[in-house]
Amino acid sequence: MKELSNASRRRMLASTGGIVALASLGGVARADTGGADSAAAKAVKSLPDYASWKDADSLIVHSANTIETKRTAFGSSVITPTDRLFVRNNVTPPKDPSMVKEPDSWTVEVSGVAKPRSFTVAELKELGLAAVPMVLQCSGNGRGWFPHKPSGTQWTVGAAGCVIFTGVPVKALLEAVGGMTDGMVYMTSTGGEEIPAGLDPNTVKIERSVPISAIEDAILAWELNGEPLPLAHGGPLRMIVPGYTGVNSIKYIKHLAFTKEQSMAKIQQTSYRWTPVGGKPKPSEDSIWEMPVKSWINYPSDPDQTVKAGKVQISGVAMGGMTAAKTIEVSVNGGKDWQKAEFVGPDLGKYAWREFVFAADLAAGTHELACRATNEAGDTQPEKRLENNRGYINNSWRDHMVAIKVA
Amino acid sequence: MKELSNASRRRMLASTGGIVALASLGGVARADTGGADSAAAKAVKSLPDYASWKDADSLIVHSANTIETKRTAFGSSVITPTDRLFVRNNVTPPKDPSMVKEPDSWTVEVSGVAKPRSFTVAELKELGLAAVPMVLQCSGNGRGWFPHKPSGTQWTVGAAGCVIFTGVPVKALLEAVGGMTDGMVYMTSTGGEEIPAGLDPNTVKIERSVPISAIEDAILAWELNGEPLPLAHGGPLRMIVPGYTGVNSIKYIKHLAFTKEQSMAKIQQTSYRWTPVGGKPKPSEDSIWEMPVKSWINYPSDPDQTVKAGKVQISGVAMGGMTAAKTIEVSVNGGKDWQKAEFVGPDLGKYAWREFVFAADLAAGTHELACRATNEAGDTQPEKRLENNRGYINNSWRDHMVAIKVA
Repeated sequence: MKELSNASRRRMLASTGGIVALASLGGVARADTGGADSAAAKAVKSLPDYASWKDADSLIVHSANTIETKRTAFGSSVITPTDRLFVRNNVTPPKDPSMVKEPDSWTVEVSGVAKPRSFTVAELKELGLAAVPMVLQCSGNGRGWFPHKPSGTQWTVGAAGCVIFTGVPVKALLEAVGGMTDGMVYMTSTGGEEIPAGLDPNTVKIERSVPISAIEDAILAWELNGEPLPLAHGGPLRMIVPGYTGVNSIKYIKHLAFTKEQSMAKIQQTSYRWTPVGGKPKPSEDSIWEMPVKSWINYPSDPDQTVKAGKVQISGVAMGGMTAAKTIEVSVNGGKDWQKAEFVGPDLGKYAWREFVFAADLAAGTHELACRATNEAGDTQPEKRLENNRGYINNSWRDHMVAIKVA
Repeated sequence: MKELSNASRRRMLASTGGIVALASLGGVARADTGGADSAAAKAVKSLPDYASWKDADSLIVHSANTIETKRTAFGSSVITPTDRLFVRNNVTPPKDPSMVKEPDSWTVEVSGVAKPRSFTVAELKELGLAAVPMVLQCSGNGRGWFPHKPSGTQWTVGAAGCVIFTGVPVKALLEAVGGMTDGMVYMTSTGGEEIPAGLDPNTVKIERSVPISAIEDAILAWELNGEPLPLAHGGPLRMIVPGYTGVNSIKYIKHLAFTKEQSMAKIQQTSYRWTPVGGKPKPSEDSIWEMPVKSWINYPSDPDQTVKAGKVQISGVAMGGMTAAKTIEVSVNGGKDWQKAEFVGPDLGKYAWREFVFAADLAAGTHELACRATNEAGDTQPEKRLENNRGYINNSWRDHMVAIKVA
């Protein structure tokens, strides 16, 4: 949706530098920028062809494969519009135009089941239907606040969105193939990216295994927010594992296997592991799978905007991870005191985030606004991030704090 | 979101004629077309400037002020994407570009309250926050099936969508102005359209009154599906009355009044009344306010598409009107036999619609697919429309039936 005022454009461009400034609140600077100016320069990088239909004013283009939603561009309507949704690809998306031109012809092979076979998307559509509202979030969202400057995109909050994926439940698919072979422990999905000739496929292929418990809510999706799933988000067909970080939801899925072992691909074996800072990743370390409880404030969050003193509706999003967000607290003094905020808008289920609002009375000055969520499992968002080598899964409330000017 | 395959384009263009063909199932023809060819010609009418950002392939442009979503373009993700959402304006939208360029500066006057005053949108944003998922539906949706060919746009199903509006609760606004003056019975909203000089304002102004019971869930909205409310849908600020037909949700609202009488505007006094066929509308007749229970099948609904024999996932949407949709039944033999279908996807509350699915086993041949919803109040969607002069509020399940080729 391209109707944006000049004022919004100006505000959004300005806010890019702002996010960087905010990063220093947590005591860290973004690893890949020299400051606000270089980040502002990044903001005007143009969108890659496969995502050219996105709303550039709402996005920070880090690179052709990493595009972040601006903190000021989330809105307050629970669902993130597709044209504002972040993009993160581990390798360049496939270039075969027939993929999206004839999405119903895309095929996926299914193995590790009683009756292995392949399905076209058209065939999958007659097996069942599910629409799943959920947070899609990159494992590295919040990496920009890790003090040891991990390699990778320096995301703050915008490598996440709450969307509705629609497709066929994996359970319905399993029914159609007579169930899994005995003894399978993982669900392993392989993406349709081209493997350059001469390379060991395991070093480049996008293949991820998740525990088979994930089949309970997983779907093979062909639709995103009511429209055919675009290539930028894994169309024509994507494995969707609700509650897990984005890397586990394999794009352009070509092969779905139920397996006894985890994938031998590098992206499974040594990438996306809970490795200590400075350590060498090992397959024995826990894989990056389930998301934890997390929240952040979206409004006010623009440090270049001066908020009018008086009543201010502080709002943001809270997610529970594998269980629903249950409560959300807000602090207007940097985490010294906390008050309960209210959820507003619809409850889209345990995998979605909730919008929240807290009506504060703010006097002139600078205020440090923070929020922390607690989920149904009783986990509360921690003050400190869990340090790890690649800067995954940052849910520290202090890192996500914003400093606001009020006058 | 502009990424559409050529196949989809072809299918969607083809389906335009199809909707007309389907209309004959209910025993009626569209009033304003000579048949499929003229409707197909309409489909390629271009979008008006204020709606040029919409997805033309998903829409039927009846006129610059009446744009319908194709039945095949709803998707199955509950929320209707903004770029596929219908448009219906009673008069041409205002042309003042500052309206959308500086949305926070738009002002609305509030009267019939203890402390009358005006508010900018920026001020409203600090009074409260609510996100309301709801069906937005034109009073005349389904008019195309009335046999007496009422004047007005010959909508079939596509003058409706399920969206999330975000804004301030009218109740929070009332609190800020010390409440309503005693004895007020209606909430009356006036649009910001320009009134041409020399005309009696009452003959042209867009002003609607609704019972004050509607304040319970009404909001003044500045956001639609997570993005600033576009001019095409009433931005920068729109009165949103959940559960009521679209005409009651006044666009570009300039004045909100709590009143003892209904508006004297023609659009209130004699338009949008329950007038008998051939009758002259009278203010004493009931006004078109609340929506009734309704449902329709979206897939399969393309008569130019041949569905493969075997298992078919019949899907569509069901809304309850003022209470939630409670059950949904499907018939595959023109309404002779009914079976319970299942709701899928999230429950967004009583004003939203639900996606439903029914797994049918269809043999080769033509099948007449119908559905009927029942709401929490116990109302079941009727077989026959309630005849009325202007063709409002058609919720006949027979009219919404589709004939499908299976091979």
